[in-house]
Amino acid sequence: MNATDRFNRQPFQKLLGIEITESADGRGAGQLPLRQEHSSNPETLVAHGGVVGALVDSVGGAAAVSLCDEPTPTIDLRVDYRAPATDDLFATSEVVRGGGQTALVDVEVRDAAETPVASGRGLYKIGGRPADAPWGFEE
Amino acid sequence: MNATDRFNRQPFQKLLGIEITESADGRGAGQLPLRQEHSSNPETLVAHGGVVGALVDSVGGAAAVSLCDEPTPTIDLRVDYRAPATDDLFATSEVVRGGGQTALVDVEVRDAAETPVASGRGLYKIGGRPADAPWGFEE
Amino acid sequence: MNATDRFNRQPFQKLLGIEITESADGRGAGQLPLRQEHSSNPETLVAHGGVVGALVDSVGGAAAVSLCDEPTPTIDLRVDYRAPATDDLFATSEVVRGGGQTALVDVEVRDAAETPVASGRGLYKIGGRPADAPWGFEE
Amino acid sequence: MNATDRFNRQPFQKLLGIEITESADGRGAGQLPLRQEHSSNPETLVAHGGVVGALVDSVGGAAAVSLCDEPTPTIDLRVDYRAPATDDLFATSEVVRGGGQTALVDVEVRDAAETPVASGRGLYKIGGRPADAPWGFEE
Repeated sequence: MNATDRFNRQPFQKLLGIEITESADGRGAGQLPLRQEHSSNPETLVAHGGVVGALVDSVGGAAAVSLCDEPTPTIDLRVDYRAPATDDLFATSEVVRGGGQTALVDVEVRDAAETPVASGRGLYKIGGRPADAPWGFEE
Repeated sequence: MNATDRFNRQPFQKLLGIEITESADGRGAGQLPLRQEHSSNPETLVAHGGVVGALVDSVGGAAAVSLCDEPTPTIDLRVDYRAPATDDLFATSEVVRGGGQTALVDVEVRDAAETPVASGRGLYKIGGRPADAPWGFEE
Repeated sequence: MNATDRFNRQPFQKLLGIEITESADGRGAGQLPLRQEHSSNPETLVAHGGVVGALVDSVGGAAAVSLCDEPTPTIDLRVDYRAPATDDLFATSEVVRGGGQTALVDVEVRDAAETPVASGRGLYKIGGRPADAPWGFEE
Repeated sequence: MNATDRFNRQPFQKLLGIEITESADGRGAGQLPLRQEHSSNPETLVAHGGVVGALVDSVGGAAAVSLCDEPTPTIDLRVDYRAPATDDLFATSEVVRGGGQTALVDVEVRDAAETPVASGRGLYKIGGRPADAPWGFEE
């Protein structure tokens, strides 16, 4: 199974509608069509901060996993919110430092009009998974 | 409508199953019963980082909103992941600095066995909402 | 007095040897010639994390202050360390979101060989200084 | 040489006047008597953000190093500034997650009147130092 397929079978990604479209060579990309169920407001459509955060985490992981081909738990994640998310979201990611046991990944989220919605930075574990870790890849 | 009810009517909170149980006096609390749809793995139950991040953001907001009784968009958020989340999650939050236009909030997430799962810190806007902002409270 | 001169008269910048070379149009730049007194080790020359952090904060502020021409206290600062700093340091910064009361600024630090040493991101207050604040500009 | 002595021989700590007073059992403490040379303003005494950041990094490292007795380079650091620093500073730190290759450390900075000045959180490398790393302990 290739890396994007593995992401797209994750139950939580499916619940949110996140699709990973790239995961190779230290880069990732993904998208999330915005729906009313993502809103923080029952009467308008504006994504909850957690929707954007989840997209950042997923797309950041898509870049990290390309370095090691094993699950890459998030160690820490930072998200700077730049504009309300009121339309479909697109994210790209890039490893800015990878090596040793961790990868630092930058993530940019834009909407369909190319407006920057959020900038994120995540640190992911890229090696040394304990044998009993609950996050292993299925065979 | 009181503050916890307002949170619990948010479509995204309902999608995830996040319930806010406290939002008063600079403090917040909430919980998320873990379900398979939160998992990052189709065959085991371990929450996607985005689930924990969304809980941190929501419960942090519950503390912030108690300072101003108007929506509090997240300016930035950091989550440090401490242990895999494999059980129901409980979060508490506390404003550590509030005043002027922003509130800094600490959030702790634990599981049903009291194991620390994540520590978060968010900065929220607590005043000066533009009249045309998409995140206003309904009347 | 222009903005770079104001920075370069700051006692702490002088103590460290930080020179701001640009502060205009949402951008900043600065440098720090590495000296033994910046080291975290008495026997080798490798900058203490605090040296890099101070450079990030100063050069980030140089971008922020260009938006408002008044002091811009740091609200929060994040630094990701990418490689040991063992040579003269050069930093550039850019406002990625400015408006309302805060500016979000990205900062990149490189050494003389163009090796990335650190990536930083700071949030600065850009308006609404209280009349009794201790950080006002001198006339 | 014990851990606090090792810190206090660091050239940069001496330049700033940071003294580490505790480094044991996952905890650290330190102080910095505020002087005019720490100021960001030639005419008033208010510490540059980089002074507070350096204290956070040092005192956080004092907690981390107690876990492994070898140098602990900072991987990433976040500082939330809570009040202007206009008096002597005191910091305490505590490992909140240590294990594997990294330690997550919380740091609180207060002034002489116990006013909270800053809250920090750092991630430190606690093992697996490459043989040619420039940050080794002297014998």
